[in-house]
Amino acid sequence: MQYLNEATTAKLISHQLAYTAVKEAFIAATTDEATLFPVVNAAGPQTDSMFSMKSASTATLVGWKTGSYWPGNQAKNIPCHGTNVFLLSPETGELVAVVAATQVNAYRTAAADAVAVDYLARKDASVLTVFGSGHQAEYEVLAIAEVRDITKVIVVGRDSHRCEAFIKRLLDKGLQAECTVGNAQYGCEQADIIVTATTATAPLFEACWVKAGTHISAMGADKVGKQELPVDLYQEANLFCDYGAQSVVIGEFQHADNPQVTEIGKVITGASAGRIDNTAITIFDSSGIAIQDLFVAAKLLEMSAC
Amino acid sequence: MQYLNEATTAKLISHQLAYTAVKEAFIAATTDEATLFPVVNAAGPQTDSMFSMKSASTATLVGWKTGSYWPGNQAKNIPCHGTNVFLLSPETGELVAVVAATQVNAYRTAAADAVAVDYLARKDASVLTVFGSGHQAEYEVLAIAEVRDITKVIVVGRDSHRCEAFIKRLLDKGLQAECTVGNAQYGCEQADIIVTATTATAPLFEACWVKAGTHISAMGADKVGKQELPVDLYQEANLFCDYGAQSVVIGEFQHADNPQVTEIGKVITGASAGRIDNTAITIFDSSGIAIQDLFVAAKLLEMSAC
Repeated sequence: MQYLNEATTAKLISHQLAYTAVKEAFIAATTDEATLFPVVNAAGPQTDSMFSMKSASTATLVGWKTGSYWPGNQAKNIPCHGTNVFLLSPETGELVAVVAATQVNAYRTAAADAVAVDYLARKDASVLTVFGSGHQAEYEVLAIAEVRDITKVIVVGRDSHRCEAFIKRLLDKGLQAECTVGNAQYGCEQADIIVTATTATAPLFEACWVKAGTHISAMGADKVGKQELPVDLYQEANLFCDYGAQSVVIGEFQHADNPQVTEIGKVITGASAGRIDNTAITIFDSSGIAIQDLFVAAKLLEMSAC
Repeated sequence: MQYLNEATTAKLISHQLAYTAVKEAFIAATTDEATLFPVVNAAGPQTDSMFSMKSASTATLVGWKTGSYWPGNQAKNIPCHGTNVFLLSPETGELVAVVAATQVNAYRTAAADAVAVDYLARKDASVLTVFGSGHQAEYEVLAIAEVRDITKVIVVGRDSHRCEAFIKRLLDKGLQAECTVGNAQYGCEQADIIVTATTATAPLFEACWVKAGTHISAMGADKVGKQELPVDLYQEANLFCDYGAQSVVIGEFQHADNPQVTEIGKVITGASAGRIDNTAITIFDSSGIAIQDLFVAAKLLEMSAC
């Protein structure tokens, strides 16, 4: 059994590695062999502590991700969130690897939205508006800046001090773009790409603010009741997601009425059309699937063997 | 993160260790803090391959067991079954240990029935009848022989060659008892203790064959549809189990009509009565709970640190 600890995986992970792995995962997710099993939401003995187990199987990878959230850790000055990925041999069922993936998880989630941007946004998209100024939003912006020549980033958030601090973090991490804080309407009207990385349970903006040709990657919705986008937008947009069966239940498209949703894996392989023209509005919903975690973990194991 | 591999745990495990750990687990299972979460039954890409995840939380231990079954392994001359136990820190949610537990699992399951025998069988019980002659049945007999002075073992199985081979294995492992093959009626009529370790889906014997004062530990039923005992017996017997909510759904008592079932942990602590007198028939249903696995794993970790 191979174990990669957090220090090792935090060193090995990159936006590029996550991008490659998640792209392969999305292709695998569209095949007949891919299965996602029911999610377990469990709890620990500490107040509000919880952990989840999300398992999946493909032709080449079998395993699960465990995510833990122990809010009491804040007082102890250690991270509240923790992620580990476990791989079984598809040939024998033996436990072959445990991969600590707390920091990796942020890259893996951002990579999903970056893959969608790469396949669905206009080639000349250069203005990125990000809703949210938290930890994940940072990874989203940096991952997207790897796949498009982003010259301007507009940050939309409730707290302008947090937004300014967020911009400072982006620039500190080497982002080469003009960064500004803006409100939701300004952000939408200017954007070529919108990424939403919030915990919202109601639309963050109005459909009429979104201009023709925009691509939206929405990552916040991963539970019943969560919502970031206005439902009106669905009629005039082309809808994409990571995994159809999940997206319409716990993802953004839980709020859509009989949506026509294309899995991004099919766009990647060319089995389905992506962006039709430069005026289409494309929306990608990332609800997050365990197959992504398995592929990223496998790639980290490959890297660690080099 | 601490890892105990199969070679280490196979060396550390004993009937005594499993007994102590499982007894503590049964006590923990009766407390308010104990929770069992929904079981995930997942599948791998090989034909008929499957794995399950059973998670639990108590005041002191949090984690899950993964059991895998890859029948194609037989052709590769490696075990089809595999078990691993994973522990999270109850204080922080961090992954603290992975414990390989394939052989341990047989001890842990047998220990449950041995604990029940210890608390429920007559002190002078000396004749043990075992239904089943498989791998698990062997561990059951040896574990029970640790808690009662067993002078005679009667093996009831469909294939007498397998039964004879089973007896040879028991004697090779040092069992000090007269061993014989018998049919179901003879086995029941002679027995002070009956242990059923089969994959049956229908009763293995008739209720009227069981004599007064007998204790029965039934371990086979752990899924809807499985059954080892005749339902008629429930009226005249006192019923016990590892975990009430599970026993009446996937355990032996799924076939009972509104059963009055006492959790063995309450008998151990003295909160509930066990055997009333020397003529009572007591039945213990072991459906198997993840809390047992967590406690055994924790005990192995303690031992490995010595």
